[in-house]
Amino acid sequence: MPESRGSESKVVVNLSNRHIHVSREDLDALFGAGHQLTKTKDLKQPGQFACDETVTIKGPKGMFEAVRILGPERKETQCEILASDVFKLGVPGCPTRESGQLEGSMGMEIIGPAGSVKKDKGLIIAKRHIHFDPAAALRFGVADKELVSIRVGGERSAVFENVVCRVHATYALECHLDFDEGNAVGIGNGTMGEVLRQTKDGTANEGQAALK
Amino acid sequence: MPESRGSESKVVVNLSNRHIHVSREDLDALFGAGHQLTKTKDLKQPGQFACDETVTIKGPKGMFEAVRILGPERKETQCEILASDVFKLGVPGCPTRESGQLEGSMGMEIIGPAGSVKKDKGLIIAKRHIHFDPAAALRFGVADKELVSIRVGGERSAVFENVVCRVHATYALECHLDFDEGNAVGIGNGTMGEVLRQTKDGTANEGQAALK
Repeated sequence: MPESRGSESKVVVNLSNRHIHVSREDLDALFGAGHQLTKTKDLKQPGQFACDETVTIKGPKGMFEAVRILGPERKETQCEILASDVFKLGVPGCPTRESGQLEGSMGMEIIGPAGSVKKDKGLIIAKRHIHFDPAAALRFGVADKELVSIRVGGERSAVFENVVCRVHATYALECHLDFDEGNAVGIGNGTMGEVLRQTKDGTANEGQAALK
Repeated sequence: MPESRGSESKVVVNLSNRHIHVSREDLDALFGAGHQLTKTKDLKQPGQFACDETVTIKGPKGMFEAVRILGPERKETQCEILASDVFKLGVPGCPTRESGQLEGSMGMEIIGPAGSVKKDKGLIIAKRHIHFDPAAALRFGVADKELVSIRVGGERSAVFENVVCRVHATYALECHLDFDEGNAVGIGNGTMGEVLRQTKDGTANEGQAALK
């Protein structure tokens, strides 16, 4: 049994569809100089919001229309797709990355109503993660960048491994999985998940044993 | 640590897309009286094969075209969809079921080149399962209908719980997950998975502990 390091283990899970964060420069190119994003809904993470604006994302083989922009503007444009999108776009090598870690990510074309931009990086599959404010991190006994597992789902439950903990004063306690992961376990937004300790190599939960 | 009951724990995992098994009667209605299925590929399970024939599956809200028929003919028509198909078809209550357990499953319309049929049951989300021949079941130490877990995937690994063991003399050793589950962990056909013992309530792996 792992040593007790915190008193809390349950976290709300919300599911991400493919979406994009855009830089000021790309927003100018896609929607016209000086265009301001139109907030339609606040997200759980403070200061983050869904926008009325959408774009088309184009890869070597295909495209997705109506990809939602999430605001506010970011320093670098970053599009987060689902693993199931990789075939249609034609980007089989698209890496799984934490937000903002775009070195070695894939290129794409982004098409907006006022123009298009070709990016040589910025396309990633988002890595599963949990946002913690520092007080929540203490209660859970986790550190920034630590990998944990999370159990979610009922009849079709699973333990997702290699979930990265991200601790920051501006965060609200929330786990982000994507639609593929949500469908695999049959859950919707707002489901509670149970955070589990995992070994350092990220391949096995402590105490969990193979059948043999 | 669970007691050792077998000497083997690795199994090949193959991924199912949405597909349909059809009865003789429905095959007559959909493709014409006496139509014989055209085998294009043997599947790993002995006697099972993919067919050239496809149909359209229609629900209250939408449809999927080109749904592959898997042969041979079955006693009852059964269409296995993905959890991610439920919204487009408009069947939010579609249950997760083992093959052949169609009581309380959803209705659907099936459209073929020679006609269509309306079924009041037969639409299910397939329950994760592992096929064992009796000798393999002995090596793994599992019984028919036993629930186990399976760990699959690398960087995006997960432990899928409530995987039903199905033991029969006509089966070949193989785990069936679906495309949603495969995408959630970033695997393709032929990946090896590790079978893990789970507790009887099906919600936790033996020895696995919550974070707190």
